[in-house]
Amino acid sequence: MQYTSGRVRLARNLKSIPFPSRMTKDAAQNVIDKVWEALSASALKDTLKIIKSEECDKVTLMSLSEKHLLSPDFLKGTLPRAAIISEDEKISIMINEEDHIRIQVFAEGNSLDEAYDTADKIDNLLAEKLDIAFHEKFGYLTSCPTNAGTGMRASFMLHLPALTMSNSISSVLTWANKLGLAVRGVYGEGSKARGAFYQLSNQITLGVTEKEILQRVNLAAEELIKKEEMVRNTLFENNRVKITDRTMRAYGILTSAYTISSDEAFSLSSDVLLGISLGIIDNVTPKKLLDALFATMPATISAAASLDGTDPISRDIARAQYFRENLK
Amino acid sequence: MQYTSGRVRLARNLKSIPFPSRMTKDAAQNVIDKVWEALSASALKDTLKIIKSEECDKVTLMSLSEKHLLSPDFLKGTLPRAAIISEDEKISIMINEEDHIRIQVFAEGNSLDEAYDTADKIDNLLAEKLDIAFHEKFGYLTSCPTNAGTGMRASFMLHLPALTMSNSISSVLTWANKLGLAVRGVYGEGSKARGAFYQLSNQITLGVTEKEILQRVNLAAEELIKKEEMVRNTLFENNRVKITDRTMRAYGILTSAYTISSDEAFSLSSDVLLGISLGIIDNVTPKKLLDALFATMPATISAAASLDGTDPISRDIARAQYFRENLK
Repeated sequence: MQYTSGRVRLARNLKSIPFPSRMTKDAAQNVIDKVWEALSASALKDTLKIIKSEECDKVTLMSLSEKHLLSPDFLKGTLPRAAIISEDEKISIMINEEDHIRIQVFAEGNSLDEAYDTADKIDNLLAEKLDIAFHEKFGYLTSCPTNAGTGMRASFMLHLPALTMSNSISSVLTWANKLGLAVRGVYGEGSKARGAFYQLSNQITLGVTEKEILQRVNLAAEELIKKEEMVRNTLFENNRVKITDRTMRAYGILTSAYTISSDEAFSLSSDVLLGISLGIIDNVTPKKLLDALFATMPATISAAASLDGTDPISRDIARAQYFRENLK
Repeated sequence: MQYTSGRVRLARNLKSIPFPSRMTKDAAQNVIDKVWEALSASALKDTLKIIKSEECDKVTLMSLSEKHLLSPDFLKGTLPRAAIISEDEKISIMINEEDHIRIQVFAEGNSLDEAYDTADKIDNLLAEKLDIAFHEKFGYLTSCPTNAGTGMRASFMLHLPALTMSNSISSVLTWANKLGLAVRGVYGEGSKARGAFYQLSNQITLGVTEKEILQRVNLAAEELIKKEEMVRNTLFENNRVKITDRTMRAYGILTSAYTISSDEAFSLSSDVLLGISLGIIDNVTPKKLLDALFATMPATISAAASLDGTDPISRDIARAQYFRENLK
């Protein structure tokens, strides 16, 4: 399984405090303090830093959201919020987003198991110090009932260009739904797919164990990648000239253009990634390409280029410059 | 005046022999022999070679036509035809095209005067040995009456991207017509403009002297280039990002694509040339670019890549490869 990046998320809430949608400012501040206190007492302490929404400028928050360390929803509310993020950016704990606590751990490689183990450890640490809302029948209680039970979402980012080109994504969606899984755009619920990048995740959190969710998502990702590869090979055999040309042009444009929109960056990167996987393009690695793609997301590139983030023309020029300087 | 290539052509016919449209095979052979004999006796002899249509394969002839050494019409007829071409390819004398003799001389730089002097010398050489059809009132007699008089056509190839982008070409045409001049595609009469490349030439050959024609075409070219530069500067000032991006992308695609059609090669080269003239692109010279454009014309690239010339897919791939290898 190549070019995937996985994530495990656990939603938790504190007993006797209203969910963020109904809580007071003081209660919100109280939750932040309690969680940070609990973690500060742990061995993890030295690797974690806390970012408070009230003390942080919007561009920095947006940039963290582009890296998936914060959710887009985190940026919207008016309550005090915070994110506790590890140095290596593998762990991000959001406080007062939809739930009081959302523990997120990013996976390395092709399995979610290790990421789950880390999330589980953090969950245990918090449970030792805090009163977590848990119901015998409904499991962990969450702001939105669809997250109750395990409170867990396990997901993979997948690159499915051949399934997209061959208009097979709708049948992939149906297949995933039957397995209790969802296939969405890379920014989760409600976000559109960009450049053939998708997020595969479990839809059901209740009535299954954490291990079952992990196994189901791991297996489905593996199977989807197998399908993608099969379709990819056939598509390439039947359209060798066209696909070779498309991926080579994408690389040429990505490393030559003077201005590139975020949407086009996704779509060109997707084509280049396809070219790499087919052995057509070998002067850039998938990691370098994806790093550049995330480094040029709107807020991230604005911050890097010291732009104020409200001028899309300068931003698109800075993005193109980044690609020219880093991928050629 | 940059990026122009000029040419002077003189049409001549032999007395008492029917024009090519009505002549016999034997008469055609006779004209070839007579012209070659006359030139063989001259000092030019060692620099000239004769190419006979009957002894030459079609791809070679097409390739000579792509370089403007032969006209597209030269390739069509069934009569014996020949072309006498100088080593440096500055002189090409077509025999039995529309007229018995068409002396063509290509200009270096921005004036047609020197090219005319060379054509005039060759004309005098032939007149010493051959009986040229000349009428006191109508001047040199030609197969098509529109060429009678001087039998001369003086032309420049011009690159007019800004006038094209700003939809000013139709007013340029009207302006040229008023001066007794024509603006056409790069392959002369009936050919369409490709990639903002045009041919400017005199339409009137009768009732004017050779010097007047030269002066008129020289001046008109100068003026057109001035107009182009003015419009170009304004256009660039008002669309800096868009035009910079367009020319940089064109260079990126031209040096990265896996397959490029001849039409696209013209259009991309035109954009790159614009980028060079605006100081946006500096890693290729206009000469190198135009050399590549002509080296990748259909028959020329087919011959170079040892293709049979009937397979457009391989040809477009060979063309793109040539650009990647020579312009990067």
